[in-house]
Amino acid sequence: MTSQHSAGHSHHGARSVAAHTAAVRQLLTALSSDGRTEVLPLVQALGRALVDGVIAPVSLPPFANSQMDGYAVRSADVSDGGAELRIAAPVPAGQSPQPLAPGTAAPIMTGAPIPAGADAVVQIERAVPDRFLAPGGKGTVQLPAVAPGTFVRATGSDVTAGQQVLAAGTFLGPAQLGLLAALGLPEATVHSKITVLLVTTGDEVVEPGKPLAPGRIYDANGTLLEAAMTQAGLRVLRAGIATDNPEHFRELLRTEGAAADLIVTTGGVSKGAYEVVRQAMADEPVEFLHVAMQPGGPQGIGTFDGIPLLGFPGNPVSALVSFEMFLRPALSALFGSPAVRLPLRARLGHSLSSPANKHQVRRGSLAPDGTVRLEGGESSHLLHALAGSNVLVHVPEGVSALGAGEEVEVWML
Amino acid sequence: MTSQHSAGHSHHGARSVAAHTAAVRQLLTALSSDGRTEVLPLVQALGRALVDGVIAPVSLPPFANSQMDGYAVRSADVSDGGAELRIAAPVPAGQSPQPLAPGTAAPIMTGAPIPAGADAVVQIERAVPDRFLAPGGKGTVQLPAVAPGTFVRATGSDVTAGQQVLAAGTFLGPAQLGLLAALGLPEATVHSKITVLLVTTGDEVVEPGKPLAPGRIYDANGTLLEAAMTQAGLRVLRAGIATDNPEHFRELLRTEGAAADLIVTTGGVSKGAYEVVRQAMADEPVEFLHVAMQPGGPQGIGTFDGIPLLGFPGNPVSALVSFEMFLRPALSALFGSPAVRLPLRARLGHSLSSPANKHQVRRGSLAPDGTVRLEGGESSHLLHALAGSNVLVHVPEGVSALGAGEEVEVWML
Repeated sequence: MTSQHSAGHSHHGARSVAAHTAAVRQLLTALSSDGRTEVLPLVQALGRALVDGVIAPVSLPPFANSQMDGYAVRSADVSDGGAELRIAAPVPAGQSPQPLAPGTAAPIMTGAPIPAGADAVVQIERAVPDRFLAPGGKGTVQLPAVAPGTFVRATGSDVTAGQQVLAAGTFLGPAQLGLLAALGLPEATVHSKITVLLVTTGDEVVEPGKPLAPGRIYDANGTLLEAAMTQAGLRVLRAGIATDNPEHFRELLRTEGAAADLIVTTGGVSKGAYEVVRQAMADEPVEFLHVAMQPGGPQGIGTFDGIPLLGFPGNPVSALVSFEMFLRPALSALFGSPAVRLPLRARLGHSLSSPANKHQVRRGSLAPDGTVRLEGGESSHLLHALAGSNVLVHVPEGVSALGAGEEVEVWML
Repeated sequence: MTSQHSAGHSHHGARSVAAHTAAVRQLLTALSSDGRTEVLPLVQALGRALVDGVIAPVSLPPFANSQMDGYAVRSADVSDGGAELRIAAPVPAGQSPQPLAPGTAAPIMTGAPIPAGADAVVQIERAVPDRFLAPGGKGTVQLPAVAPGTFVRATGSDVTAGQQVLAAGTFLGPAQLGLLAALGLPEATVHSKITVLLVTTGDEVVEPGKPLAPGRIYDANGTLLEAAMTQAGLRVLRAGIATDNPEHFRELLRTEGAAADLIVTTGGVSKGAYEVVRQAMADEPVEFLHVAMQPGGPQGIGTFDGIPLLGFPGNPVSALVSFEMFLRPALSALFGSPAVRLPLRARLGHSLSSPANKHQVRRGSLAPDGTVRLEGGESSHLLHALAGSNVLVHVPEGVSALGAGEEVEVWML
């Protein structure tokens, strides 16, 4: 029982969202030390982030090539309103072609190297005849005038060798990995996955699939946060549901936490009389405080046996909002992964009210026209409404009401 | 050599994006037959979609509970401007509490069941004294008047037992899985993963990490599409890079395709003289056509040995745009996974031009203020620009120019 501790804390001033964001980031900097990197084949590096910037070892394209199927020409040969040119041997793909003799036109396919001497391509559709001759065929072709450079993809027009193409910390999605492949790099050096021990608490909390006695509820937080953390690229260890016994709780963390880089708990951080995380951490360097945020106000932050520990509140919506507001952005900032959620502006579909002294985080549905409808009320137990939402809606501290049509910041989930 | 075929095809009319979208969807409906489902533990179902709608087996919350730490009261007892009430035994979490006797107030923590008879909760901060007594302590507490229902989360206020909470086809992200857990459901029945055989083509194309001879380029498409498909929830088989020999190509598909639900190729579908996919599929029910889209116009669609086959063009940006425009939306529509990319409206940061007879798909950077800047030109070889983009920008058929500040549809990547 921690009645004194709990009640006393309620008189403290709340910490701002920005200050707690900074504190969580500071707590996790220890995980960004050297040696926590690995080299992975490209596709395995999907969803990770680069440790170092990447310098292009080759130019892209590596050689000038044709953007069209047609004839490679010396533009000077057709500059006088077009000309009849002798057809040269086709340009082979995948080899260095012979130089183009003056007065000739070489059949060329998209992507094939521009022969030395040629400086433009005429599309097959603009040639007369507008079909390629059969292999070995000899003859002439009538071609119109073209400007130098027409339908030529110049060497290095996408990337110049020696240029930094991706910065340190870049999140590796399909396009970034495709770029590394195009540069001939088969692997990437990325930050190692962070292993998090996830512990949900509460004597009344039951694993899904078990019978539900009166007064009990199923554990939603374990699944919700494990899924969110997995999606964000964390490796998640589940310690099951901890009891409300502080000594058992400490023992659980000591046993299961050894393999973890980070411990995240849910529940037991508030002002009530039975707050297992608070009680178990009473003699540890873990601070329990109130962040000026709704939901998700009560937060714990510190270390246990030297391992960074975050104590999220126990309501599912509060727990997810805590993850989205504090842990996920800290990981993005420090390690480049997961990708930052792009903040967008949206117009409220209807009015709302919010406590002026708190940053309120509502759940909503963003429509293609840029309006956002709130899903459910502000209460943190409304999981069904969360499941019907695609954005978090931010109402900053200092704002107590917003009208329909006013702009808000939203984060896409 | 298919000069006649190629040149002839260039005179055909192009198919609209909408018509090809419908054709791809139709091609894949065969994969939505019965039996292609599996039952998975919740977190393993992350990123899949529900086969059937889910009916809530219990209400949420399953019992009325307190939204605050404080005292459970009969509101009538304090209706006359507040009252001094005798303190009852604390409400235990996780058990059915004793009914609340008239004239008493029971200490109650957030989430604990509201005792029979009680109909409101007074926050501890509004009580005098504003701290809970030590366990076993007896005495009275002065409480203010409260309206019935205050700080009570009513049974079923989130979900009513028997209600459909998630529809068939719902994409399962953290919130949806958390909701299933809260309902006590430990598993979900989801669509099985679709296995795709991915084949890149070209005699000039080299695996990343190998030496690059003159006239050769590295295979970006394999990595780019394998990553995009993996991210979209497909199981990807890589057949390596196919040569430009049609017979070898057919043999490769026959050998490697047996385990696949779908074959996707890149390159060899255009109007050139050496188009391996076209040539190899000449006697198969595979159609090669031009979609009125830039990039990504040349497309192949049909079946090989009864397996659905899509032939994407060979330039990396064209290949990715083909995936994003045709395959990914078809999978979302038919199987609920991957999640649909929400179309958003954005304002162009500068002007652009587009061929009026084509749907142009540009790459861009969407900023938080809702403006989008184009990255790179319209050319489909600009992979570095793609890697610096976070949206696809749509310029519909019929639009040949847009000015700075005009609205466009964007899809977040």
